Amino acid sequence: MMLLGRGLEARDNQTRQIQDAVSNVEKHFGELCQIFAGYVRKTARLRDKADLLVKEINAYAATETPDLKAGLIKFAGEFSRLQDYRQAEVHRLEAKVVEPLKSYGTIVKLKRAESELQRASLDATRTTQQLEETIDNFEKQKIKDIKTIFSEFINIEMLFHGKALEIYTDAYQIIQNIDEDKDLEVFRSSLYPPDYQSRLDIIRAKSRSPLLRTDSLKSSLRTVQISSSMLRKNEDEEEEEDEEEEEEELDATKEVR
Amino acid sequence: MMLLGRGLEARDNQTRQIQDAVSNVEKHFGELCQIFAGYVRKTARLRDKADLLVKEINAYAATETPDLKAGLIKFAGEFSRLQDYRQAEVHRLEAKVVEPLKSYGTIVKLKRAESELQRASLDATRTTQQLEETIDNFEKQKIKDIKTIFSEFINIEMLFHGKALEIYTDAYQIIQNIDEDKDLEVFRSSLYPPDYQSRLDIIRAKSRSPLLRTDSLKSSLRTVQISSSMLRKNEDEEEEEDEEEEEEELDATKEVR
Repeated sequence: MMLLGRGLEARDNQTRQIQDAVSNVEKHFGELCQIFAGYVRKTARLRDKADLLVKEINAYAATETPDLKAGLIKFAGEFSRLQDYRQAEVHRLEAKVVEPLKSYGTIVKLKRAESELQRASLDATRTTQQLEETIDNFEKQKIKDIKTIFSEFINIEMLFHGKALEIYTDAYQIIQNIDEDKDLEVFRSSLYPPDYQSRLDIIRAKSRSPLLRTDSLKSSLRTVQISSSMLRKNEDEEEEEDEEEEEEELDATKEVR
Repeated sequence: MMLLGRGLEARDNQTRQIQDAVSNVEKHFGELCQIFAGYVRKTARLRDKADLLVKEINAYAATETPDLKAGLIKFAGEFSRLQDYRQAEVHRLEAKVVEPLKSYGTIVKLKRAESELQRASLDATRTTQQLEETIDNFEKQKIKDIKTIFSEFINIEMLFHGKALEIYTDAYQIIQNIDEDKDLEVFRSSLYPPDYQSRLDIIRAKSRSPLLRTDSLKSSLRTVQISSSMLRKNEDEEEEEDEEEEEEELDATKEVR
């Protein structure tokens, strides 16, 4: 009877330890889930900015001389391809890291433990043994799941970083190959058509006239001087866009895209 | 005189073309600057989330059995090291991409063009030639600067992605090396001290008693059932944190950390 009393006491300790273990896993898996979800959302926001960059590089390229234009468009294409991989990264992290942690933190795995605990409690003669098995399974499965989830995280991230290295290697060559001298020729010939150029030489030789006007040059300088107020306006727009973006982000706490 | 008139007309066209080229560069470099700055800020936000992840992995590890604990702490260490590289990425992008574009979009480069244009306009006899040179220099320098800025961007990103691959390779091994069987032994022996285990065998053999209580098990089940409301609470906190974070982000439009 003394032995049984001590057995019951130990049994209570055991149950308390199990309760603690279960609620500890629940707490930390829940928190890990939230932070991983935040990490995925920030990755999606980075992809959004990169998409804007692709758009702006293309818009700028459209206004430029042929070789620079072609180089920038090719670069934007590669950078856009990298964003497709970032998008895949976002989806994979969502499916292989956030979702498994979410089901862990809430129902599936613990529900199973729960029903096993209930089943164990029905048959008091077999309780201790059943409990041992249930907890063994729970612990073993938990460690396996952590290993799987973290390995998936690492694999998904590595896949993305590997693709990034590959794409940037090509992109670097594209930028290096932009030929400034070739473009300069194009720019010059657009400013000074050949027939005008030859006439200009005649004028230079004959007249050395002081009549060339300078007022349109002055208005060119005004354009330059408004630049800093222009930039400030851009920043305001950017802030508004950020606010809108973050509002969307709050709406879509669970969904990524 | 007819020739000179056509010369002046062409000269006006030239000046207009130059004005357009200058304000076009100003506009697009300003926009590129804003979006790159946004890209850098989002990278910094991703680093913040990763820092939180490091903290939480360490907090969870502290509650775990030795082998899992050691593995998670080592992983968190590697992941934290990667965030140091991400921090370096943020600083480098700020210094080598955003800042050069900012000075381009506003003052430095165009101010120089401005003063050269002014100087050119003072000496009317040399105007055309000076203008050609100024614009040549501006165009040439612009293409060179674009190549430099984009090359820096690619280099900085590649450096980070390369480090990420290196660190994740180590991190993957750390996770794989977590030994679930070793930890299971530790967990079992913490639940069932050896002296209790041997006594339990005696009890089992002698009594097959139905007295083992089940009420503490029920309270264990209650712990399990509150899990979904707990997770919801966590999400609310996360949203608040996001809002605070984004307010900070808006305050620090220009500064990254």
